[in-house]
Amino acid sequence: MTIPATLLVHGGAGPIPDATANPRFGGLARDGLAAAIEAGRRVLAGGGDALTAVAAAVECLEDCPAFNAGRGAVRNAEGDVELDAALMEGSRARVGAVSGLRGIAHPIAAARALLDDGRHVMLAGAGAEAFARRAGIETIDPQLLIDAAPGERASAADAESAARWPGDTVGAVALDASGALAAATSTGGTIHKLPGRVSDSALVGSGTWACDATCAISATGQGEYFIRTAFAHGVHALIQHGRRDLEGACRHMLSEVEALGGHGGCIALDRLGHVALPFNTAGMPRGLLRVGEPARIAVHPEETLRV
Amino acid sequence: MTIPATLLVHGGAGPIPDATANPRFGGLARDGLAAAIEAGRRVLAGGGDALTAVAAAVECLEDCPAFNAGRGAVRNAEGDVELDAALMEGSRARVGAVSGLRGIAHPIAAARALLDDGRHVMLAGAGAEAFARRAGIETIDPQLLIDAAPGERASAADAESAARWPGDTVGAVALDASGALAAATSTGGTIHKLPGRVSDSALVGSGTWACDATCAISATGQGEYFIRTAFAHGVHALIQHGRRDLEGACRHMLSEVEALGGHGGCIALDRLGHVALPFNTAGMPRGLLRVGEPARIAVHPEETLRV
Repeated sequence: MTIPATLLVHGGAGPIPDATANPRFGGLARDGLAAAIEAGRRVLAGGGDALTAVAAAVECLEDCPAFNAGRGAVRNAEGDVELDAALMEGSRARVGAVSGLRGIAHPIAAARALLDDGRHVMLAGAGAEAFARRAGIETIDPQLLIDAAPGERASAADAESAARWPGDTVGAVALDASGALAAATSTGGTIHKLPGRVSDSALVGSGTWACDATCAISATGQGEYFIRTAFAHGVHALIQHGRRDLEGACRHMLSEVEALGGHGGCIALDRLGHVALPFNTAGMPRGLLRVGEPARIAVHPEETLRV
Repeated sequence: MTIPATLLVHGGAGPIPDATANPRFGGLARDGLAAAIEAGRRVLAGGGDALTAVAAAVECLEDCPAFNAGRGAVRNAEGDVELDAALMEGSRARVGAVSGLRGIAHPIAAARALLDDGRHVMLAGAGAEAFARRAGIETIDPQLLIDAAPGERASAADAESAARWPGDTVGAVALDASGALAAATSTGGTIHKLPGRVSDSALVGSGTWACDATCAISATGQGEYFIRTAFAHGVHALIQHGRRDLEGACRHMLSEVEALGGHGGCIALDRLGHVALPFNTAGMPRGLLRVGEPARIAVHPEETLRV
């Protein structure tokens, strides 16, 4: 039996606002997930690789204003928007990761450029930004990202968005037709974070991991707890050495996060096409595509995603 | 039988220069290791905790000009010195990590301040530096660190140091009298690195890990490979789930690094006082202390360290 190319996306684990509190969130989030899945589908259906598919999906999620990544990311303690992203290729353990980018709307593209460059696997701060500019990654006026951030605004016209949940991290994992896995994650980090704060999303082993032999994972939640538990590599290790299945490994690592006082979730996928999308928050906007089948999307907590 | 408080230190895995090529290296390195062990011994013998002991030891190693950390760290591609450090407490999984600090001679002290602050576990770039300054970490004129870096110099008087091996990362792991473990690592990163490059030393799970149930680890080598293998968390996972002993787990992860083309080593310690100090380079300056016994130090490859 051939395993179909598969893509999972998420828009962050958290307290999803109900339709009364924020009537626009559901529609925006659903549109964002659908666009991301379509971008990934185009890559996978055309025989493209998992790494390219997850980067394409995450670029779309970065464009969606409902999510805390790219446009729509939260402001830090000084009112700036600083963005993190990472991606990993399961077949060759190639990695690209960036943290603290300003004026770059698609940090995942910068992470991909770093992976392709090959000299380093992670850059942060001004050096990361300089690399992204030299690599030809599209720039944007930092003020536009600041203006697009949720939360308190100068203008009364923006009152509606002030109510919106700041969302969380976005991510994607994919299995391509050749059986290769990849994972990508992008975030604006925690609201009012200290400048320079590095998220789990930017850290391979914490928020992002991919290994063809085990799984691809993108996590979301209170990043500090996911770093302290080495969440994503922990899922990998439980499958590799601990005889856990994908769902059991994810749930075990989430229980480690919970034991420290943290909350969140993840999406995970193995080379047999098994998927897991656990979270210990009220909800997690998420979507699944098996190439050749219709996409399935769930945003509100009461929705179930038939996988 | 009571297990004595134990401390391991390292000064980086690499091609240790022989006495002919650089007569000063051996003496400097030995003095640096001895001072670090003495600083850790004072903490542990006085009933202090493992976290305080590893931070004290690494501060001394940062002061030693023979090693690529603090004073003596290498310059990046733009001629600046940017420093990384991280530490982790095995009992509560508390973490502090910093990357890209300029003008701070003791990055491990900044990492410790971040751990104590508790809001975030990792900061990078200008934000990390601003935090360190606010936390009252001692600053130094960045030019003094640049002048202290090995390699090509303006002055002919510095010709001798130009020959010296740029060294590598420093680190310490400790077991205290209460049975708690901790690990700390500090580095100047790779010579001529791109500005903003984040090392494995700064990444919990890659170059640094501590968990009382398994082990404390500080790694050294070509950091990119240690990030791509999640080296330190990999050692932990092999002990926790893979039924490996400490030495076997370290050697297995070093073989994963090697399979990708990388080299390096690590020091590791478990709560029973077992130690491992493997490396796949020509040498690794290293030292061991069991509190109440004399310290043992090895610098040159032909020396053995009776553990």
